[in-house]
Amino acid sequence: MTSGGSVVVLTGGVGGAKLALGLSHVVAPGRLSAIVNTGDDSRHLGLHVSPDIDTLIYTLSGLVDPGRGWGRANETWGFMEALRAIGGEDWFNLGDHDLALHVERSRRLAAGESLSHITADFAARLGAGVRVVPMSDDPVATRVITDAGDLAFQDYFVRRRCAPRVRAVRFAGAEDARPAPGVVQALADPDLEAVLIAPSNPWLSIDPILSVPGLAGLLRDARAPVVVVTPLPGGRAVKGPTAKIMGELGLTLSIASIEDHYRGVADAFLLDDADPPVASPHARCDTLMITLDDRIRVARAALDLARR
Amino acid sequence: MTSGGSVVVLTGGVGGAKLALGLSHVVAPGRLSAIVNTGDDSRHLGLHVSPDIDTLIYTLSGLVDPGRGWGRANETWGFMEALRAIGGEDWFNLGDHDLALHVERSRRLAAGESLSHITADFAARLGAGVRVVPMSDDPVATRVITDAGDLAFQDYFVRRRCAPRVRAVRFAGAEDARPAPGVVQALADPDLEAVLIAPSNPWLSIDPILSVPGLAGLLRDARAPVVVVTPLPGGRAVKGPTAKIMGELGLTLSIASIEDHYRGVADAFLLDDADPPVASPHARCDTLMITLDDRIRVARAALDLARR
Repeated sequence: MTSGGSVVVLTGGVGGAKLALGLSHVVAPGRLSAIVNTGDDSRHLGLHVSPDIDTLIYTLSGLVDPGRGWGRANETWGFMEALRAIGGEDWFNLGDHDLALHVERSRRLAAGESLSHITADFAARLGAGVRVVPMSDDPVATRVITDAGDLAFQDYFVRRRCAPRVRAVRFAGAEDARPAPGVVQALADPDLEAVLIAPSNPWLSIDPILSVPGLAGLLRDARAPVVVVTPLPGGRAVKGPTAKIMGELGLTLSIASIEDHYRGVADAFLLDDADPPVASPHARCDTLMITLDDRIRVARAALDLARR
Repeated sequence: MTSGGSVVVLTGGVGGAKLALGLSHVVAPGRLSAIVNTGDDSRHLGLHVSPDIDTLIYTLSGLVDPGRGWGRANETWGFMEALRAIGGEDWFNLGDHDLALHVERSRRLAAGESLSHITADFAARLGAGVRVVPMSDDPVATRVITDAGDLAFQDYFVRRRCAPRVRAVRFAGAEDARPAPGVVQALADPDLEAVLIAPSNPWLSIDPILSVPGLAGLLRDARAPVVVVTPLPGGRAVKGPTAKIMGELGLTLSIASIEDHYRGVADAFLLDDADPPVASPHARCDTLMITLDDRIRVARAALDLARR
């Protein structure tokens, strides 16, 4: 059972990649596009690192480390070991195989290619089987304003392990960014039957996408409904700092806060079986995605809701 | 038996590194400086690669692959494998550990540090035990003019395996280069007792050093004699394209051609036992350097000649 129309999913890192993998099994070949957060992108050791793009490509192509959900399976760490020996910064781990994408991406960006073009090429060569589209080819940097200062995303997320209290989140450069060409193309497709927002962190992973001027308008103008797969089953974050950040931002840890957050963007919500109902149109299923079957089940439920 | 005064060696890649290692065992700690060819330096995959500097540091610190004489022992190749899978250029092999030096060097150069400073730091951290000094902090690029065109050094040497016929060798940028501060300092040392020219390729590895304006003058003004350890024992090149290039440049494959080449620079020559005598002051020994003992023997013979 595959869907006939085209489908777009907005996604961040690990959680979103799981839904995208499920979708890739139920959407017809060539009809799924993933619009990916690049607010986490950073220069590290002089290299352009795109964590969410790489997590998605690795997940879709079967290269991902199944335990961590990011990085590559059977990774080796010779580079990091040698880097440490010459006094290099070692708080951000780059595996030997993973490094190839950062080096080659950096080289091609410096040669004038767009992030979109490079990403499409990597996805195709690694066999992702899905159109992987950065939200923008222009730089947008997620800044986490905390009690420990105004932090770059990777500094907050990796180096400080989300410990500082979050006061606000900003997207530096967003005002000058344009949606990548593939974003416009995917959302304007006359055969579009669903736009899904993956259960990624709404504040850190989805908001950067929505911060790109014009992108929210493209969502509203799209022919298909926008369905949020909610990230907080039974009021608990599956992984990552969603619950912690909601508390720090003064939000109630409930599905109603998620509904509020996506007001004006979402048409419907796929809730977890454990969630109370919301006022907006909704459906429910067990949204926990451990196995591939789980991911396919959630993907199907989200598409079914979009079609209703 | 260690020497009391300071010693400078001009060196290129593998052959020169062997002599430098021998010298490091007979020169007093802190008194040996190696002035290294950077004409082979190139940007590869957007990274600054300094092959001769790295070969020397790896050799002196015991990290070198003993079979190849360059690169690192117990190297792994995950990066290259992953690079190939995304369509990256794979004719220049970069090992996972080796890559750390290229990435960190590139990052520090982009941050405004000098190649000298970075090189000294890497050498110290990896335990090279010798002052490793690039010939210049300014870019000088060895160009090999061949019947297949005007080639960058690595293109000629690695990609085309020295197959094209050499017509001339040029050092692009040399006219604007200055000797690195450590070069001036090492050659002006009042305790200097010997300047050795390693048995590296005179045209490809030593000439780039001598092409830096002012450097030949510093050699002439130094308080110590300049001794060439000749690279062509018995008229045969030990390794690499020296003999092939001499033929292509119309030179007789003899020690007299080497003497001619270094006229005005060298004061004396350490010949191999198999060589005929030359007109200049000279001594001889078995110059083939296979074992560490060989390298120490040649180092001692060269220093003895300088002291006479």
